[in-house]
Amino acid sequence: MSPRLFTFSAAHHGPWVVVNQTTVAGAPLPQASHLRIQAGAPASAPGPWSLRGITSNERYVERAEREALVSRQVGLGQAGHTCAALIPIRKSSAWWALTQDERRHVLEEQSQHIRLGMNYLPQIARRLHHCRDLSDNEPFDFLTWFEYAPRDTGLFEELLNALRGSPEWAYVERETDIRLVGG
Amino acid sequence: MSPRLFTFSAAHHGPWVVVNQTTVAGAPLPQASHLRIQAGAPASAPGPWSLRGITSNERYVERAEREALVSRQVGLGQAGHTCAALIPIRKSSAWWALTQDERRHVLEEQSQHIRLGMNYLPQIARRLHHCRDLSDNEPFDFLTWFEYAPRDTGLFEELLNALRGSPEWAYVERETDIRLVGG
Repeated sequence: MSPRLFTFSAAHHGPWVVVNQTTVAGAPLPQASHLRIQAGAPASAPGPWSLRGITSNERYVERAEREALVSRQVGLGQAGHTCAALIPIRKSSAWWALTQDERRHVLEEQSQHIRLGMNYLPQIARRLHHCRDLSDNEPFDFLTWFEYAPRDTGLFEELLNALRGSPEWAYVERETDIRLVGG
Repeated sequence: MSPRLFTFSAAHHGPWVVVNQTTVAGAPLPQASHLRIQAGAPASAPGPWSLRGITSNERYVERAEREALVSRQVGLGQAGHTCAALIPIRKSSAWWALTQDERRHVLEEQSQHIRLGMNYLPQIARRLHHCRDLSDNEPFDFLTWFEYAPRDTGLFEELLNALRGSPEWAYVERETDIRLVGG
C-alpha cells in the first residue's frame, strides 16, 4: 500500500532549497532555508516547524472531471520539474459550516477551482494533502505541493492569481507560500 | 472549542456495559466487557483495544437535508437514553475510488441513508466519527455512536436492517456491532 501520510519539515539541509517564503494571510510560519518531505510521521522534527498531511479521496471532483484530469495529469518527480511550491492553507469556520452542495457551488460553479487546475495540466503537477481531520488542533487544513519546470513559473503564478481572486479564497484565513528549487 | 477527537476503549470497568458484541463482517474485535469514551487521545489505553475517530464537516448532506435534520435531531446524553451502540465500519477500496457524485448517488439516491436516519429522529441520537484520515493504517473508516431509550430498541434494529440491506452496504467490508447500557 502506498503511503498517504506525508510530513513536510523545515530543515537546515535537504533536497529542496527555499528561494522565497511569503505569508499571504494569517499567522506566519518561521522562515525555512530547506525543506524535507518524508512519508509517514517522523519521530522527531529536524527544524523549526513540521507540517503533516494525508492524501485522501476527492471531496468535490465528479466522474467526468476525474476522467479529464486523469487524461492530462502527470505524477510528481518528472525530469525537469526542478521548481516546487508548498502552499499550506486554512479555511475559516464559515467554510466548514457550509453543506456539501454549498461548498461544491463555491469551489467549482463560482470559482472553477477544478477547471482552473486542469487548464495548467500537464505542466503543473500537484498533490493535495488534508490536515484538518488528523487531530483537533492542526495549524492548517490543506497542504498542496506543486512541481513544475522553471520555464512554467509564469503559468504557475497565473494559476495562483486566478485561485486567489476567486470567491473560494474569501474563505481562506491563513496561507503561506513557499517556493523551492531542487538542490 | 469543543473537542472533535474521541477515543472509544474497551475497559474492565466503565460507564457503559457491553451487553452484546457481534462481528457483522470482516475481522472481529476482541470481546469487551465495558466501554470508556474519552475526548482526545489518551496516553495509554486501559484495555484490549482502543478506537479513535474525529467529528468533521458533513460529506454528503445538502442544505435542505441539514435543515430537516437540525429541526428534528437531539444531542447525546438525553435523560432516558440508557441504551447505546458503537458500530465501527470500514468501507472497501472500491468505495473510496468512487467520485463524489458517485458516492452521493449510492449513499442517498440508491440507499436513502440520510433520509432513513431522519425517519428515526429524534428517538435515535447519533454522532459520526471519521477515522480513515487520522493516519495511514486505521482499522476502521467510521465509528458511529448511537443513544436511545430502551423502548426504542426495535426502532433501532429497524434502522440498522434498512441500512444493511441497502446498496451502500455492499461497500462495507468490516463491521462490528457493540450494544451497551449505561451502568
